[in-house]
Amino acid sequence: MQDMNHFDAPRVGILPAGERNRISDVAGVRVGHTTLEQGDIQTGVTAIHPHNGDIFLEKAPAAVTIINGFGKSIGLVQLRELGVIETPIALTNTFSVGEIATAQLKLATAAHTEIGRSWPTLNPLVLECHDGYLNDIQAFAVRQSHYEQAVASAGADFAQGAVGAGRGMSCFRLKGGIGSASRLAVWEDGARHTVGALVLANFGRLPSLVVGGVPVGRMLASEQAAPQASGMLAEQDKGSIIIVLATDASLDTRQLGRLSRRAAAGLARTGSFYGHGSGDIALAFSTAYRIPFQADAAMPSVTTLHETRMDALFEATAEATEQAIINALWAAITVSGRDGHIRTAIHELLPDWREVLAQQSAKG
Amino acid sequence: MQDMNHFDAPRVGILPAGERNRISDVAGVRVGHTTLEQGDIQTGVTAIHPHNGDIFLEKAPAAVTIINGFGKSIGLVQLRELGVIETPIALTNTFSVGEIATAQLKLATAAHTEIGRSWPTLNPLVLECHDGYLNDIQAFAVRQSHYEQAVASAGADFAQGAVGAGRGMSCFRLKGGIGSASRLAVWEDGARHTVGALVLANFGRLPSLVVGGVPVGRMLASEQAAPQASGMLAEQDKGSIIIVLATDASLDTRQLGRLSRRAAAGLARTGSFYGHGSGDIALAFSTAYRIPFQADAAMPSVTTLHETRMDALFEATAEATEQAIINALWAAITVSGRDGHIRTAIHELLPDWREVLAQQSAKG
Amino acid sequence: MQDMNHFDAPRVGILPAGERNRISDVAGVRVGHTTLEQGDIQTGVTAIHPHNGDIFLEKAPAAVTIINGFGKSIGLVQLRELGVIETPIALTNTFSVGEIATAQLKLATAAHTEIGRSWPTLNPLVLECHDGYLNDIQAFAVRQSHYEQAVASAGADFAQGAVGAGRGMSCFRLKGGIGSASRLAVWEDGARHTVGALVLANFGRLPSLVVGGVPVGRMLASEQAAPQASGMLAEQDKGSIIIVLATDASLDTRQLGRLSRRAAAGLARTGSFYGHGSGDIALAFSTAYRIPFQADAAMPSVTTLHETRMDALFEATAEATEQAIINALWAAITVSGRDGHIRTAIHELLPDWREVLAQQSAKG
Amino acid sequence: MQDMNHFDAPRVGILPAGERNRISDVAGVRVGHTTLEQGDIQTGVTAIHPHNGDIFLEKAPAAVTIINGFGKSIGLVQLRELGVIETPIALTNTFSVGEIATAQLKLATAAHTEIGRSWPTLNPLVLECHDGYLNDIQAFAVRQSHYEQAVASAGADFAQGAVGAGRGMSCFRLKGGIGSASRLAVWEDGARHTVGALVLANFGRLPSLVVGGVPVGRMLASEQAAPQASGMLAEQDKGSIIIVLATDASLDTRQLGRLSRRAAAGLARTGSFYGHGSGDIALAFSTAYRIPFQADAAMPSVTTLHETRMDALFEATAEATEQAIINALWAAITVSGRDGHIRTAIHELLPDWREVLAQQSAKG
Repeated sequence: MQDMNHFDAPRVGILPAGERNRISDVAGVRVGHTTLEQGDIQTGVTAIHPHNGDIFLEKAPAAVTIINGFGKSIGLVQLRELGVIETPIALTNTFSVGEIATAQLKLATAAHTEIGRSWPTLNPLVLECHDGYLNDIQAFAVRQSHYEQAVASAGADFAQGAVGAGRGMSCFRLKGGIGSASRLAVWEDGARHTVGALVLANFGRLPSLVVGGVPVGRMLASEQAAPQASGMLAEQDKGSIIIVLATDASLDTRQLGRLSRRAAAGLARTGSFYGHGSGDIALAFSTAYRIPFQADAAMPSVTTLHETRMDALFEATAEATEQAIINALWAAITVSGRDGHIRTAIHELLPDWREVLAQQSAKG
Repeated sequence: MQDMNHFDAPRVGILPAGERNRISDVAGVRVGHTTLEQGDIQTGVTAIHPHNGDIFLEKAPAAVTIINGFGKSIGLVQLRELGVIETPIALTNTFSVGEIATAQLKLATAAHTEIGRSWPTLNPLVLECHDGYLNDIQAFAVRQSHYEQAVASAGADFAQGAVGAGRGMSCFRLKGGIGSASRLAVWEDGARHTVGALVLANFGRLPSLVVGGVPVGRMLASEQAAPQASGMLAEQDKGSIIIVLATDASLDTRQLGRLSRRAAAGLARTGSFYGHGSGDIALAFSTAYRIPFQADAAMPSVTTLHETRMDALFEATAEATEQAIINALWAAITVSGRDGHIRTAIHELLPDWREVLAQQSAKG
Repeated sequence: MQDMNHFDAPRVGILPAGERNRISDVAGVRVGHTTLEQGDIQTGVTAIHPHNGDIFLEKAPAAVTIINGFGKSIGLVQLRELGVIETPIALTNTFSVGEIATAQLKLATAAHTEIGRSWPTLNPLVLECHDGYLNDIQAFAVRQSHYEQAVASAGADFAQGAVGAGRGMSCFRLKGGIGSASRLAVWEDGARHTVGALVLANFGRLPSLVVGGVPVGRMLASEQAAPQASGMLAEQDKGSIIIVLATDASLDTRQLGRLSRRAAAGLARTGSFYGHGSGDIALAFSTAYRIPFQADAAMPSVTTLHETRMDALFEATAEATEQAIINALWAAITVSGRDGHIRTAIHELLPDWREVLAQQSAKG
Repeated sequence: MQDMNHFDAPRVGILPAGERNRISDVAGVRVGHTTLEQGDIQTGVTAIHPHNGDIFLEKAPAAVTIINGFGKSIGLVQLRELGVIETPIALTNTFSVGEIATAQLKLATAAHTEIGRSWPTLNPLVLECHDGYLNDIQAFAVRQSHYEQAVASAGADFAQGAVGAGRGMSCFRLKGGIGSASRLAVWEDGARHTVGALVLANFGRLPSLVVGGVPVGRMLASEQAAPQASGMLAEQDKGSIIIVLATDASLDTRQLGRLSRRAAAGLARTGSFYGHGSGDIALAFSTAYRIPFQADAAMPSVTTLHETRMDALFEATAEATEQAIINALWAAITVSGRDGHIRTAIHELLPDWREVLAQQSAKG
């Protein structure tokens, strides 16, 4: 079995990555998975902690961009109104959103019995993709305890590929799932900030795949045209990608919204045109300050970045998103699931990717 | 016990109402409730069928306005992208959204086993208010079977007040809950259409209440200032109103969006200024045509209303919304619930409302 | 002739007003008018300075709500993206937006010749209503010099009613125009902030007018039903209201956006349901901090209000907006203009308004 | 001099183009330019007629996506509210928006003297980019007569490159301007529709440029690093791209909005990450039906495309946008303007582009 913490993926773009090349290069961000992998059940849940504190008491500033709204997430209405996250971010399959939202409420009320009584309620935040090709989604296999495990096991070092919510996901008709990356924005005066991305990648048709500008998907599709064709058409409506972005730059929610929109550029670089049936959502948060729950707590004094500095962050966002998708593909292992369906890992189909891409990078 | 189908409420506005003065004056719309009322459990679920067909196979055109987004609804992202409803609209308490979303998925997959397999998934649509003052919301008392009962029992004639999702709701610190009304838009050439409203009313502070222009809330608040005051402040963050609008006018989703925005005017007439903590959401749908699920089915040929005709619908929307809130208040009975909390029905506090308002209407 | 700085208008709501009961109660805000009043030309321009500094070098944080988008304003796209105002806010008639936008560019480039050369361009900000009933709008009478005069003559004490951009405006088929008001938000801990409103009021049908909850418009309409009726129908598509809100509270642009949405509640209280043809726009800015143009200038350290404090500002916004509309009506004088059209001042039609409204306030 | 109707540009993507490979492959769409090219004045105006009728009397359904809102366009607020275009679409430089908006009003009132009198006003629609590097934008050189000439001279066959509004524009620090392209969406049942794009391309930094997946910009930048570097930084805030999309598919305004969002994917393929200072706007309209101005005219009966058919249009939109940008670059000639500034045409810097790109396409 492949060690999911170590894989060998193409490097895209030109900016430096953080130490782990993961979203956890933004200090305090932790990720945990619970993976279900038994026969027709190939699914799971992934939890992302925006910081190490109590996220309900110390909320994280956040914003979201709906690139294409064919999706069933919960929590985005209030996130947009108030500009904060107040629970770990959960990723799971489409049919498990309700179960995980309830799990978030139960965990939070266990920690703070005032919630929904003397305090306001909690805003669950669960984002999803549809893993029904590999997973029997009608089994509703993800349970509240799985979310609790994911939350409890989270760390800065975490697996990618066919793990957690990514277990059953498909991307470009290949095996998709969880991918992460980071990039550094560096300004002329030496200031620097990190942008980290984590994706749940479950979108796209094979011929569309582009890696570092090379139309790899067309190459692969022509090799295996017959078997893939009918499946591609039958399933064209079922994709999605969730993109979670973290930064340690001090941005207000308007600026975080601007940043989150740049995920669409990174997504497009991999060949996506934001398909009709793909719920493409990018959510960004900052760790630079926190908003206290208590009305009588001192509000932070926030010095945001001058707007002219945003370009460096935008470029880092696009590139971290692109790289996270590439990492999701290359970290994935081949998985077989519901009704004998199989999604093949790209590293099996393209063992010579270095050679293929080298021709390209020689030119750049 | 009061018969909840018959109550005696003030009539606001100037437009004619439909036969039932309910959302079901729009032909095909049906409403069902399941009410839980036992000790600390004072809550429930309400289901609204947009039409008599299979709503997944024949989707209803729809749009939504977020007047204030302090709310935890599910389903609005996809509704905005695709402009359709594909499940009955569910209303319930804040903590039960996840449970009811799962219930909608299970009902739909039972009817159509292809959903999430060879067909795309379903977009659950559950809207909520927080009933934690009267209801022990941490008990998670609403179960999937309660939703199924509400769906199955729906009809054109339905109860209002402290029923269904409205069981535990408070409005202007009085007993709130479910209210409904309708108004007719009539044009000079004799054309006419109906706008129906159904509200889950759970917002506002007592002094703000205005009925037909009369500051009734200030009158009531001054009478009972001492006991109410502290409670008002402690709970000021916990309101919300869900406004569901139906029309038989042929509108596209842009026009339905315009219509839904006018609910904010009706809401303001009752004294609301869209409080910070109030999740105020208005969702509008049309019964004039349906969008087929099947890609090979014939799409409807739609003749929308000329834009200059919208004013009559806008006026009807504002007035139907205002009246539905008034009806929710007057249909409600006094309810006692969690920890001995009590919300009093306005008809008990203001038995002489005819006299009070008559002074006012004499002037108009 | 009436002294437009002093008029006698009904007082609505319950909150305390600032010293001037004008938008200029927010320190630093100044307003200037140029009024054109000759025969068929009844129009003008109004300029609002958000603060006393150079608004291009020190931008004011701002946000906007489009209540109904039937309007031709310029500048709102960039205002939403960047969250700042960088020029005085101009109000004028619909056909003069282009001329005044050019005037803003010429004034700014005269002061800073780098604009559009070594510096970026300027975002003009011109909002408008259609005064074509009283004014020959096809004459394009407002010129750049008129804007320059308005900018130069601005002060904290300014006229209301049929002045500046308000000269030719109609409101509820009565004479409308410029109105202003302010309200104080006061918290339990003694903190207080001011919300000021300035409106260009040009909307509504006579029967809809409500003053302090009293359906004054219905009273007036029944008295003069015959002559008004046809005119009302013929002109129903031509209204609009621009609402400019200022506050000294320290809000970020998301919070300013929330605040600006509450103008819709104040507008509804006067009887509006946001008619189809009415371009209803609310723009809010804060004077609590400024954003430097220069990338190397120090960014301000901003401590925004805790979100739970927003309700007091929301209530003040709704009430200041309602009062500003009332003030626009009562400050206005009767004006005759294009083709002998006349709009009558409400104080002429309703000299006994104290008596009429007193019956009402006795009950509150 | 290069014949601007004929140039030799790389072909990107895989879909078939229309006959002209221009936006005018959508029947009825016509484009006209007025070009000003004298010393420091290098600017102009471009007008696009959505159809051959009277656009005020027969409005075209339309929608817009603000990819990045650093822009000064006029007309988008009302376009979003009402979903129609009622004037030719004008493109020009940033400082000329006001002048051209006035020109649109004067042309329209000359044709229909009722506008602004017995009829409502007109919504001007002028989109812009900043051409201040090559053009003395403070000269306000574009006049109303130039717009009138552009409108009058419009045809289906029109020049691209350094013409009309594109005269002074820069793209990737090369000469940019007007580009156009079209792509066919073809469904399995033989149905087909055209998507046409026209861009005013004025964005990007040289190293970012990607052509058909090949990082051409990095190649060019490394060759000329020293002279470009400082200029790039000094001017990084001044870009923008306007993307106008036409289709003969029958889409409602919600669907046109979805389509317009896919322009962002095409834009990203050329290397853009939607820079902070770039006003990136995509506007889409349909020619499949028209909305009558007159309230008593018959509304069209519209059969929109089933949503599952959108993917073919989305792919065509992304590809037509990408191709239009490429065409803008390759159609452009080298231009020198204000203060001796020069922008070089890419065909001069990269005469061997066939060879460079051939290596790439060999792999696809």
